[in-house]
Amino acid sequence: MIHRDDCTDLDAHDPLAHLRERFALPAGVVYLDGNSLGALPSHVSARLHTAVTEEWGRDLIRSWNVNGWADLPYRVGDRLARLIGAPAGSVVCCDSTSVNLFKVVSAALASTDRTVILSDVGNFPTDLYVMSSLAEVRIVESENVIDHITSDVGVVALTHVGFGTGRMHDMAAITQAAHAAGALMVWDLAHSAGAMELDLGDADFAVGCGYKYLNGGPGAPAFVYVRPDRISGFRNPITGWFGHAAPFDFDLSFVPAEGIARARVGTPHVLSLVALDSALDVFDEVDMAEVRKKSVSLTSLFIDLVQQADLGLRLVSPLDPARRGSQVCFAHPDGYSIIQALIERGVIGDFRAPDILRFGFAPLYVSHTDVFDAVRILVDVVSSEVFRDARYSTKNAVT
Amino acid sequence: MIHRDDCTDLDAHDPLAHLRERFALPAGVVYLDGNSLGALPSHVSARLHTAVTEEWGRDLIRSWNVNGWADLPYRVGDRLARLIGAPAGSVVCCDSTSVNLFKVVSAALASTDRTVILSDVGNFPTDLYVMSSLAEVRIVESENVIDHITSDVGVVALTHVGFGTGRMHDMAAITQAAHAAGALMVWDLAHSAGAMELDLGDADFAVGCGYKYLNGGPGAPAFVYVRPDRISGFRNPITGWFGHAAPFDFDLSFVPAEGIARARVGTPHVLSLVALDSALDVFDEVDMAEVRKKSVSLTSLFIDLVQQADLGLRLVSPLDPARRGSQVCFAHPDGYSIIQALIERGVIGDFRAPDILRFGFAPLYVSHTDVFDAVRILVDVVSSEVFRDARYSTKNAVT
Repeated sequence: MIHRDDCTDLDAHDPLAHLRERFALPAGVVYLDGNSLGALPSHVSARLHTAVTEEWGRDLIRSWNVNGWADLPYRVGDRLARLIGAPAGSVVCCDSTSVNLFKVVSAALASTDRTVILSDVGNFPTDLYVMSSLAEVRIVESENVIDHITSDVGVVALTHVGFGTGRMHDMAAITQAAHAAGALMVWDLAHSAGAMELDLGDADFAVGCGYKYLNGGPGAPAFVYVRPDRISGFRNPITGWFGHAAPFDFDLSFVPAEGIARARVGTPHVLSLVALDSALDVFDEVDMAEVRKKSVSLTSLFIDLVQQADLGLRLVSPLDPARRGSQVCFAHPDGYSIIQALIERGVIGDFRAPDILRFGFAPLYVSHTDVFDAVRILVDVVSSEVFRDARYSTKNAVT
Repeated sequence: MIHRDDCTDLDAHDPLAHLRERFALPAGVVYLDGNSLGALPSHVSARLHTAVTEEWGRDLIRSWNVNGWADLPYRVGDRLARLIGAPAGSVVCCDSTSVNLFKVVSAALASTDRTVILSDVGNFPTDLYVMSSLAEVRIVESENVIDHITSDVGVVALTHVGFGTGRMHDMAAITQAAHAAGALMVWDLAHSAGAMELDLGDADFAVGCGYKYLNGGPGAPAFVYVRPDRISGFRNPITGWFGHAAPFDFDLSFVPAEGIARARVGTPHVLSLVALDSALDVFDEVDMAEVRKKSVSLTSLFIDLVQQADLGLRLVSPLDPARRGSQVCFAHPDGYSIIQALIERGVIGDFRAPDILRFGFAPLYVSHTDVFDAVRILVDVVSSEVFRDARYSTKNAVT
């Protein structure tokens, strides 16, 4: 049996425990939805206030230079590069994950004669949707993607950690297999970035999301990675002025920028970018290996406690922590109502159709004691069947 | 001779004069760059603070429902629809202007067998860049676009008011001519929306920018219009989950949404959207015909005062106010240095290569007295040649 004291003890020895106080989480809430929308780092509101009143309001158009708005997409990109195991100058922060995936998969297809994109059923639907308008997408089971990298596959495109299962692909092995088979490799890091150490290695392209474990705020701009030796040949299908070699020369014809700038399109969403930039301060001096270690500890504890309670929830996520991201999913026929009842009691997870209860464990602000308390409430909700009274909906909550 | 008292008198009779106090412009500044970055409406900072601390920080993921984040792109779209002369339900706020242009021009080309896009030299370069990767773009002089709508032209795509000249196209006449020739009509309203009353009429598609005369903040999300009868056939080339009929069903295959939602792609940049939504409050109960009337009055006054001073500046904008937007451009070989010197003295305009001094007149916060004071300083700068000492650069200022 695991007791609450055991969890308190784990927290006492957690080298990341002090980070919790940097977040403005409401009292009485255990927030297990940081994989959908990361919590607010407290200092972000002051930073954004400065951006609005002093940079926009007072310095006006000059802020592009004097307050560094012009460099923000690269500055944030370089901060993200460290977190995803990419070199400086290979990442830029812009647009949405979907738009960025459109760019990199288009560019990948433009550099191969092969016509098939290989993906898996665990990929986030928007990735499949975006790619389906670009080429034939062959969607296989997640377990054996490598076996399907046949000679007609030009691009292998996967989300590293599955949104609906928490299942984590072996990035190095699949990248190697894709290259061995003559295919290009695209990773979507939406559910990985900020939750673990990452190493993109030889992967050709990657995209990811700023508003989950990176805590960049609702709809934070996304990012795009192009392997340095591929940048000069990268053909962005959307040739906008910020991807131009000299946007302020206002030439009539398009000449792509030399560096990662060519992955950009339009004017950056500065206010959203400032929030993300500010949020990343929390990661300064954080060892991502420690983040991953704590993530494994939290998810393993959660699984152990739920299994120990024997509630009739079926584990959907891998039991092996090496194959699991920072979230845990269980299936239950009343999953939707259970999630509502949990939310009413301050335990915020989310529901994914048809029957998945999804819980994310952001290592920067979730403690082992939080996990214990959440499971205690889950046990109470499920065993008392109180969830049958659940009233309101999070159906539209955004992953 | 026009005197300052004449301007004070015009301001005293200006029905929009009271709106000036709703903006947080710094003291001692005449801001004539609202066509590049609109000024900050004072109340926006408090609204954004609430969005950050209460919506994101306290309500977290639930804000998609309880605080209306999910509807923001449509709610802002409908507010914009009123300002651009479009029906409710035909406009959605998302992505950047460049990305939205990519969508609508792709969709337009997909619905015609013709392969040529007709545009003009006055179009904003990003529009030309984006379109050049989609089809052949035939770029003609701005004066006689209608004469060039030949039978191979599938799409006519123009920016209503030219960024480098302030020249305004006759929207109704060109739309009619395009349709008469069997072409589709796309308007970019970046330099019109918020500065005048607009009527998209029969135009097929439009895009526009949230951060100029709409005052939505740096890099505010852009908008996209699809004529209602064209929505059901609109093929967005970037098929992301927010353009799906049921994004939260997480189906593996893409089914486009019924309404204007199909013009969307990824997760909305909520913080930037909130700023734009809040900024639009200033337009509530504003008669856009009055806005246009004041705009003409301001730009005409500016031209008259500059011509009266006989400074050797060559007017680039049309003298006829019916053919001019809300900005005035002059050419001068020392244009760049003159703009720097003006900025040092609190008159903020901007420079566009090779020799254009560009001044925007946002009717919501620029007064006739501002115009007089700006010209007085311009006269001082040019006649004393003090601009030869100008030190700093706004070269990267974003249009």
